Amino acid sequence: MSNRLRDLIRIEGYLLFVLVIAMSFPFIMALSMNERDAASAFFMVIMPCLIAGLIIIKFVNPSPSKIKARDGFLVVSLSWILSSLLGALPMFLSGAIPNYIDAFFESCSGFTTTGASILTDIESLPRSILFWRSEAHWLGGMGILVFIMALLPTLGISGQVVANAETPGPTKDKITAKFSDTAKDLYLIYIIMTVTETLLLKLGGLSWYDAVLHTFGTVGTGGFSCYNDSIGHFNSPYVEWVIILFMILAGVNFNLFYMTRRDGLRRIFKDDESRFYFSVIGIASLGIFLCLMAYDYAGGIGETFRDTVFQVVSVLTTTGYMTDDFNLWPTFAKMALFTLFFIGGCSSSTSGGIKCVRILISMKLVRRGISIKLHPHRIAQVMFNRRELSNNVVIHITNFIFTYLLLLAVGFLMISLDGFDFMSSFSAAATCLGNIGPGFETFGPTMNFSVMSGGAKLVCSFLMLFGRLELFTMLVLFSKYYWNSNRTH
Amino acid sequence: MSNRLRDLIRIEGYLLFVLVIAMSFPFIMALSMNERDAASAFFMVIMPCLIAGLIIIKFVNPSPSKIKARDGFLVVSLSWILSSLLGALPMFLSGAIPNYIDAFFESCSGFTTTGASILTDIESLPRSILFWRSEAHWLGGMGILVFIMALLPTLGISGQVVANAETPGPTKDKITAKFSDTAKDLYLIYIIMTVTETLLLKLGGLSWYDAVLHTFGTVGTGGFSCYNDSIGHFNSPYVEWVIILFMILAGVNFNLFYMTRRDGLRRIFKDDESRFYFSVIGIASLGIFLCLMAYDYAGGIGETFRDTVFQVVSVLTTTGYMTDDFNLWPTFAKMALFTLFFIGGCSSSTSGGIKCVRILISMKLVRRGISIKLHPHRIAQVMFNRRELSNNVVIHITNFIFTYLLLLAVGFLMISLDGFDFMSSFSAAATCLGNIGPGFETFGPTMNFSVMSGGAKLVCSFLMLFGRLELFTMLVLFSKYYWNSNRTH
Repeated sequence: MSNRLRDLIRIEGYLLFVLVIAMSFPFIMALSMNERDAASAFFMVIMPCLIAGLIIIKFVNPSPSKIKARDGFLVVSLSWILSSLLGALPMFLSGAIPNYIDAFFESCSGFTTTGASILTDIESLPRSILFWRSEAHWLGGMGILVFIMALLPTLGISGQVVANAETPGPTKDKITAKFSDTAKDLYLIYIIMTVTETLLLKLGGLSWYDAVLHTFGTVGTGGFSCYNDSIGHFNSPYVEWVIILFMILAGVNFNLFYMTRRDGLRRIFKDDESRFYFSVIGIASLGIFLCLMAYDYAGGIGETFRDTVFQVVSVLTTTGYMTDDFNLWPTFAKMALFTLFFIGGCSSSTSGGIKCVRILISMKLVRRGISIKLHPHRIAQVMFNRRELSNNVVIHITNFIFTYLLLLAVGFLMISLDGFDFMSSFSAAATCLGNIGPGFETFGPTMNFSVMSGGAKLVCSFLMLFGRLELFTMLVLFSKYYWNSNRTH
Repeated sequence: MSNRLRDLIRIEGYLLFVLVIAMSFPFIMALSMNERDAASAFFMVIMPCLIAGLIIIKFVNPSPSKIKARDGFLVVSLSWILSSLLGALPMFLSGAIPNYIDAFFESCSGFTTTGASILTDIESLPRSILFWRSEAHWLGGMGILVFIMALLPTLGISGQVVANAETPGPTKDKITAKFSDTAKDLYLIYIIMTVTETLLLKLGGLSWYDAVLHTFGTVGTGGFSCYNDSIGHFNSPYVEWVIILFMILAGVNFNLFYMTRRDGLRRIFKDDESRFYFSVIGIASLGIFLCLMAYDYAGGIGETFRDTVFQVVSVLTTTGYMTDDFNLWPTFAKMALFTLFFIGGCSSSTSGGIKCVRILISMKLVRRGISIKLHPHRIAQVMFNRRELSNNVVIHITNFIFTYLLLLAVGFLMISLDGFDFMSSFSAAATCLGNIGPGFETFGPTMNFSVMSGGAKLVCSFLMLFGRLELFTMLVLFSKYYWNSNRTH
């Protein structure tokens, strides 16, 4: 067996362990809640995974060399596909989701922190299965391999490889040779956020189960709930504000939290991307709030304001929790919300989408375009965080956005074969690629993806994976060039 | 009076002459057809324009220096706005279009070769007014100032200025110091195309009036007809194929026609952009044709094929003539057609939109993006027509596309204040910015823009002007920087 293949299999072995540990929580829950079908389904997945993992770690020795960047794409893509495939099994085997493609969609949606669902009646599912679905958000939010890196620093896989493939956003300023340290720091912040939100929700009167499950959905910017009405179920302003706060925090660059230990909170507001992020929240909330008030859409000012901010933050951070059916909003408010589908949170947060930094820089490119027209022989530099952006970063961002739009167009055309109207098909492609969750019209907040054909569900699942892995990690595997030049290496 | 202001006024003076000459045709037509209201309206516009033009040429002396690039933006923008404002007057004064904003929309739509209309019953209008509307397509197709350049080589305005602002597309390979020669060449090809198509349509049984009017709409890639059913009115496969042929020709880079004199027809097919253009026509036609056949949408194979090609070519070249109501097509066919809204014809043709060359290069950038991920330290060059593209061209194209998307988003949000559904608002913004003509749903091929509010009509009019003048010509005028640095020059 070649070194490369050995490394690959070994890493998937560790992944199996992580999944086994993760599934053991809902397994125990299923046993204690007497959900027999679910318990046996978890058992049927845990046992083979455990055995396979043990065999791999025992018999496949680590190779002396570290995995190369180009193999990283394959390792990371395979890990995510494997997680989604295995994660779907408990839902399928327990009979909770009788169709495996549906279960795969749901599992993908969990791990990629999308939160789109094919379930028509969430509350009818076993509670352990719902917990597993939300736990996948938590695992996927920071990256499964980043998690493994944090646990096993000497895994034999380069941190840069994982960081490039799994950490959202184009700027990896804090990534050093000791990526496992960074991974630990990121997970430390993540765990602090998780514990804090859980406690705050518990204080708001939620059960431990509800509190943990909705915390997973918030800090991972996922969006799965265990209720058909999503967060609207609790009917509690306190709970809504807590979730708004943590959605906002989950959309901020986690490295900045780390830096606040030295520089204080103002560090966050000195960052160009964060400032843009908070400005978008402010402007979008104000615009939509005024529109809703003008059209006399909702009840009181307070409720309308809270609903507006909740929906804006939920879409911008690509979480996807809902307290109001924005399908019923006046057109302008709807459309303003839809433009947020194409922005997303900050880089190195758990959110998906194009990311604020890329949108901000492309807007700076537009301004530069005007200046180039006025001074054709002088190409102005683009500034970001008081530094000149290198040409390479601009090229990467441009590539990303064009690729994003191309995947969106292709996904949209494939989904439109199903014959839904434009807004439904387009928003379905956009919500999956951006890892948001709900779309508009047929796939609006109170609807679900069950009406799609199996083919369209698979297209959506892959859009989610493309989006979560920053497009290129999976896309390079589709290039002939990758496999050709692999052979010669 | 400063030299710069003098030059600016002088050029607008010549523009008035061109408009006077252009309007005298429909004026004579109105007299001979006994359309009294129209005739007096034309007279009321022609006389003041003639007098103002004479005064300007007589009393405003040309300045010794040539106009600078930065003033070119102002000259060109003002010329187009002035043309649209004056062109709207005959429609308004004759009572044919009782609202001046509507008339301005119609006139803008004419000059920018968009072809979107606010008229609910075209056939009720005076025929001279309809002729004028279509003549604006012909004038706008190649550029009004290019026309003046062709007539008056020693105008005191640099060819580069006009070419940058008025000639569609990023590559101006044939533009030399003697731009007036190029302008003559371009107009020679344009006139040959115009005469040929008119004769071919006449042979197809059309009246001279119909033949000339629809030729204007075709070679200018405009799309105004004098019938409510557009080209469907003639119900003649021959006429449809002639128009398909000339729409395709009008969407090809005119410089290539010029080069075929030396290199033969294969010159066209050796050009990367043309090859992409013809590939898009082929692939889109095939895909939509198969979809229409699969859904059993239309009658015979021949008719379905012709309808498909007609609609594909009409949208891709941004003409906007219709023989079928694509609003009724199955979703996939509709959506495939809609993606063509974002491509457009070739550069240096009369068509609008983003242009094939830009789409092609941005797709090459996506491919390069994948290669960069595989070889992070080696940035591959992007090839176009067997040459490496300079970084500057890539930057210009990127700027253009981002700016296009930004204007689209802003225009779309402003239009959505009117409360139409997503597809209507979005396609209205896209069709105006791309100078196409019809949109979808409320603004579909059998509908019109009359239901819009006045504000939305103005937004659409400016989107048309932005699109026709390659965005930046007008956009720089909105930048504070332009006016500030103007003062210091």
